[in-house]
Amino acid sequence: MASRRPDRRGSTVTHGFGPVAPPDAQIRAAAEQRQAQLTKPAGSLGRLEELGNWVAACQGVCPPKQFERARVVVFAGDHGVARHGVSAYPSEVTAQMVANFLGGGAAVNALARAADATVRVVDIAVDADTDPAISTHKVRRASGAIDREDALTEDEIAAALAAGKNIADEEIDAGADLLIVGDMGIGNTTPATVLIATLTDTEPVRAVGRGTGVDDAGWARKVAAIRDAMRRARPVAKDPVELLRVAAGADLAAMTGFLAQAATRRTPVILDGVIVTAAALVAEDLAAGASAWWLAGHRSTEPAHALALGQLRLDPLVDLSLRLGEGSGALTALPILRAAVTALADMATFAEAGVSTSDAPGPTSGISLQK
Amino acid sequence: MASRRPDRRGSTVTHGFGPVAPPDAQIRAAAEQRQAQLTKPAGSLGRLEELGNWVAACQGVCPPKQFERARVVVFAGDHGVARHGVSAYPSEVTAQMVANFLGGGAAVNALARAADATVRVVDIAVDADTDPAISTHKVRRASGAIDREDALTEDEIAAALAAGKNIADEEIDAGADLLIVGDMGIGNTTPATVLIATLTDTEPVRAVGRGTGVDDAGWARKVAAIRDAMRRARPVAKDPVELLRVAAGADLAAMTGFLAQAATRRTPVILDGVIVTAAALVAEDLAAGASAWWLAGHRSTEPAHALALGQLRLDPLVDLSLRLGEGSGALTALPILRAAVTALADMATFAEAGVSTSDAPGPTSGISLQK
Repeated sequence: MASRRPDRRGSTVTHGFGPVAPPDAQIRAAAEQRQAQLTKPAGSLGRLEELGNWVAACQGVCPPKQFERARVVVFAGDHGVARHGVSAYPSEVTAQMVANFLGGGAAVNALARAADATVRVVDIAVDADTDPAISTHKVRRASGAIDREDALTEDEIAAALAAGKNIADEEIDAGADLLIVGDMGIGNTTPATVLIATLTDTEPVRAVGRGTGVDDAGWARKVAAIRDAMRRARPVAKDPVELLRVAAGADLAAMTGFLAQAATRRTPVILDGVIVTAAALVAEDLAAGASAWWLAGHRSTEPAHALALGQLRLDPLVDLSLRLGEGSGALTALPILRAAVTALADMATFAEAGVSTSDAPGPTSGISLQK
Repeated sequence: MASRRPDRRGSTVTHGFGPVAPPDAQIRAAAEQRQAQLTKPAGSLGRLEELGNWVAACQGVCPPKQFERARVVVFAGDHGVARHGVSAYPSEVTAQMVANFLGGGAAVNALARAADATVRVVDIAVDADTDPAISTHKVRRASGAIDREDALTEDEIAAALAAGKNIADEEIDAGADLLIVGDMGIGNTTPATVLIATLTDTEPVRAVGRGTGVDDAGWARKVAAIRDAMRRARPVAKDPVELLRVAAGADLAAMTGFLAQAATRRTPVILDGVIVTAAALVAEDLAAGASAWWLAGHRSTEPAHALALGQLRLDPLVDLSLRLGEGSGALTALPILRAAVTALADMATFAEAGVSTSDAPGPTSGISLQK
């Protein structure tokens, strides 16, 4: 069902997402059956088997097909709160890193090459003018400082959600069969933590991490900013769109729209770190059932990330103490998903290989060769 | 220093391994310095940074080179103890699976294709005649039933260790720049558990797992067999070669020789599951310092695997409830290692990309653009 929220006249407006249907249960059952026929003890590939079955269910075909167009979309945006000393880096770095993405020199570029994915960067709210090719979906220059003002106006939140939705449509229409959401924005762990702490009802000190490496004094400023922003967020916590508008920002709202739309369009997504997972938490509120289309790529060192994954009941694939964002954790996990697809699609069955199954009776067994 | 053991005349014989020098510390330091220059917050790629630095140190060059010839060697061997009902599968499956490896239909084949590695299978002690192309290093047909007899004779243990050493030399001489050890052998978790429980001084019931899926009655038989074999193993626990001879088998001994020689030849190895890690535990006794050349690919569901990894102080890369062997866990981890190499080798530095570093002072910072 599409999410609704009361508008000012007390009626409800939809945001154009959903309904979100689950991945195909019949195909999943077929994949489980195929797993049992492959030349390995049943269940012995553990989580790889579950992943392969999930991909088959998402694609609606068994055996599943290897991903041909895995696509990372990095949502870039600045945050007014960064002026209040919550990050180890100045806001100017956002635009500099966007240029670095375009030049192919960032971690997301290197990891995407290693994982056979391509990268698109979109300027949603960078506090600078960027290449026109990436700024067609730009909502504004930097979202508001959420510890003291709304992140966005009513028009801007609508534009940001629509940007995310439209970007998802563009990518899926262009053939993307697996999506990864990345983030870039100095200060963006602050709004992400506000969203997660608010939606999981967590005290700020339990949720706030070091981001890209803020020092003790910066961490204290960050906790204070998050506490102030949460005071503004709590009254609208039940309304995902209003929550994004008041206490998040354009980049997070665009990611939310993107995630909701990708699920509506039956396209699997690998989530990355705390920023993307904060947006995912809101997207699940906006488009119930969307999380069935998501895989948690990794668990980062940010405390709020684990809180959000727990709320979404997603178990991350790897846990390598990453804390970079950009999609880096999801890209690190992508080859594991590819391996799961290859195993389910390409392994021989017991019958094909002429290998005995485990149903031979007793200790000094007679064997039951399958032909 | 080469490992020595007393021979029957009270003197010592070396087994031709070592000395094992550590990976290059200077290159590791250079890699750490390079990590700090790349366009990401220092340390933000977490374990990926450590992995990249380790590869550089192993290769003796920074930035490291992407692996061009990652090679899996699957050591196949049967075990007399399998006749005593310790496995869910009959021994005949070992030879059938060897044929499946050669046909490309097994999990190891599929996962190797996904990870850009190639697979070699060697028959060390399969209880059947196999393709002559893979049996040139064969030691015997099935090792002895270790719950009641020695696994190998004196000549056979020497032959098995030499086989492993020679196979490592063959692969490294042919250009392998990363090695993975795989296993295939019905019943082989029994001798592996004997080695690990003996060397970690663990009660059998705490170490014994389900292998490929033995039932409750089989598990009880397995515990009894392991207890009996451990009684035979304990008196020789301090002598790695004699331990392998009395209580392991030709395949495990060959893996041990392979692992010791790969380290001697300065070639990194990704360990797989409980079988390979049992051999690694013995190889570290045989060639002290060898473990510095190893990466733990994964943690399996076998309790003894975690015990062995703990003893070797190796932290596995992934934990996906695999319990197949063949090299499957190591191959699942290989792309993560590749990603680490790519990140360290291919990312732009702050200077190259013109991105500001984090040393800007204070909350409303001036920036320090690096040119």
